Amino acid sequence: MASSLAATDRILVLPEPLPLDSGQVLPGVEIAFETYGALAADRGNAILVFHALTGDQHLASPHPITGKPGWWDRMVGPGKPIDTDRFHVICANIIGGCMGSTGPASLDPEGRAYAMRFPVITVRDMVRAQVALLDALGIERLHAVVGGSMGGMLALSLAANFPERAARVLAIATAARHSAQNIAFHEVGRQAIMADPDWRGGDYYAASGSGGKGPEKGLAVARMAAHITYLSEAGLTEKFGRRLQDRAAKSFGFDADFQIESYLRYQGLSFTDRFDANSYLYITRAMDYFDLAEEHGGRLADAFAGCAARFCVISFDTDWLYPTAESRAIVHALNAVAAPVSFVELSAPYGHDSFLLEVPALDRVVQGFLA
Amino acid sequence: MASSLAATDRILVLPEPLPLDSGQVLPGVEIAFETYGALAADRGNAILVFHALTGDQHLASPHPITGKPGWWDRMVGPGKPIDTDRFHVICANIIGGCMGSTGPASLDPEGRAYAMRFPVITVRDMVRAQVALLDALGIERLHAVVGGSMGGMLALSLAANFPERAARVLAIATAARHSAQNIAFHEVGRQAIMADPDWRGGDYYAASGSGGKGPEKGLAVARMAAHITYLSEAGLTEKFGRRLQDRAAKSFGFDADFQIESYLRYQGLSFTDRFDANSYLYITRAMDYFDLAEEHGGRLADAFAGCAARFCVISFDTDWLYPTAESRAIVHALNAVAAPVSFVELSAPYGHDSFLLEVPALDRVVQGFLA
Repeated sequence: MASSLAATDRILVLPEPLPLDSGQVLPGVEIAFETYGALAADRGNAILVFHALTGDQHLASPHPITGKPGWWDRMVGPGKPIDTDRFHVICANIIGGCMGSTGPASLDPEGRAYAMRFPVITVRDMVRAQVALLDALGIERLHAVVGGSMGGMLALSLAANFPERAARVLAIATAARHSAQNIAFHEVGRQAIMADPDWRGGDYYAASGSGGKGPEKGLAVARMAAHITYLSEAGLTEKFGRRLQDRAAKSFGFDADFQIESYLRYQGLSFTDRFDANSYLYITRAMDYFDLAEEHGGRLADAFAGCAARFCVISFDTDWLYPTAESRAIVHALNAVAAPVSFVELSAPYGHDSFLLEVPALDRVVQGFLA
Repeated sequence: MASSLAATDRILVLPEPLPLDSGQVLPGVEIAFETYGALAADRGNAILVFHALTGDQHLASPHPITGKPGWWDRMVGPGKPIDTDRFHVICANIIGGCMGSTGPASLDPEGRAYAMRFPVITVRDMVRAQVALLDALGIERLHAVVGGSMGGMLALSLAANFPERAARVLAIATAARHSAQNIAFHEVGRQAIMADPDWRGGDYYAASGSGGKGPEKGLAVARMAAHITYLSEAGLTEKFGRRLQDRAAKSFGFDADFQIESYLRYQGLSFTDRFDANSYLYITRAMDYFDLAEEHGGRLADAFAGCAARFCVISFDTDWLYPTAESRAIVHALNAVAAPVSFVELSAPYGHDSFLLEVPALDRVVQGFLA
């Protein structure tokens, strides 16, 4: 699925094998990325944006499969908060992903899809791959690194592990580690995928030609469960409540009587058109493994001790996936090492997804921080 | 599964076919129930306890499949808050269930399992069946009706629809209607079950003999997703955090590295030993359909207008499945019709499951209200 679209992306093949936290080494890593806006002669105006779990490099240009606008189209562009008239904005598909960068659907050196033979990667591995991309592009120091949700984890990881590479770090709706509840929801999704007989232990790629399309039902269930966590209870009540879907009365059956059921089913099904189930397994695993404090001797502040960047941390009051308390923990750690940090909890009704949606206050904070 | 255990229960066959909210009629309804404590000569000391979604009639006696103590063993017994030295306590398996009462695994008049030909039932239908049980037992007016979670919905429904049948109504950790988020989580569970090819459109009972065991994987995923909603985020962090399961380091694989993963997998798997997947579909559907206001012209207060019972409503501060706001809505409706009601939000760390767990303050409130 992903590889057929790779031609529309810029692809960089990393010149060196990529060392991984697991101890393994990944050879021939390809990174698919997009850029927006011109790179200044001094290469000092680059902003790297990290995408979230199910995002990709199509930040501000239409998605090649869905045809929808880029996932942060409202934030990135000429005159927008991340202003492509001023900045050279880079967004790369993470390794482990399925939109052109090397992941479980990619071919291994023997020429067959990695599937579950792909090494388990970490958030730091994803960052390491993109730092190698920056090296290849000749960008030594970013004007800023920016990310929401998992993208925020990558931004924090870059700050901690490559402290010289970014002058500004903007982490939105994120956390410095995955909580038990976060892991729990991901585990439900993984089990849903692995319970689907079409998963075939991950080796469903070969079967695609014979009509099989991979564990679509399991992946849809995983997406449905995750999607609930992206929205606030109040937002769901406002948007759907108990309203029925195209009917005047309950059916006394198991159709999607309620709008929320219809909506979730659609979210699940449409997701399978653009996402690879094995990538979902690997990326959720990387997120669950993420614990920036643990990586740095158990004390989060130590993760940031060597970093000279300015930080901006943003949370949303209705985000129950990565609630404000998680952002506060990051801010306290930054305070402990006297790092310059501004922090704001924004009020928005959309839950975790607020970082992707129409929240004018977010635009102002982002624009101000990058200025 | 269920029918083989029915012999250990008392079973009552309702003398009349049961009319359902769908307009259908269910013939030959069997109700499996247990009782604890002696019924007084004037039949005035009976307490009916309604169980929750995955509960059953084994309230205070060992579960016949798991061998574990009854689900409310800590609350019901001699000298306990629901004191069987004083009260005759009745607990019946709901219709649609799988522990002996008529449900989708039961045989239809043609002698085959209903499966998905079982009529879609409502919370009010479940109550109607148990009121018929009370009729058969000659119990005209209960000392109290008690329920937590879905059981609380049944208690409220009994108060609204059979207002003469209970002198006291105790509703714990519940709601007068299912929210969009509640429906959403249930829909994930249903889709997980229905996505399992072993579900076979519900007709998996016949296949059990041939080694098939029904949609166990799908049911396990459904249970895992639901289980997360029963626990608080803080409770999960306290109980599991990011601790690893029987290992010193992450495996860089997809085993249950984290204790929370291992716990959830166990919860999912063990659930399939004692619960029927079709029952899970039907009961969750009944809960999603539940909206006591809608049943009574759209105004919740009108549901309680004819009820002379005393009410007690209890919520838990960490319950995000049926948060305190839902209990407050019930209390406001009761206030609007000047019904006597006491309300308390208890502090307990366990989330929704608090009603089943060691919360001494709950014991005191229950005991006091029933006195």
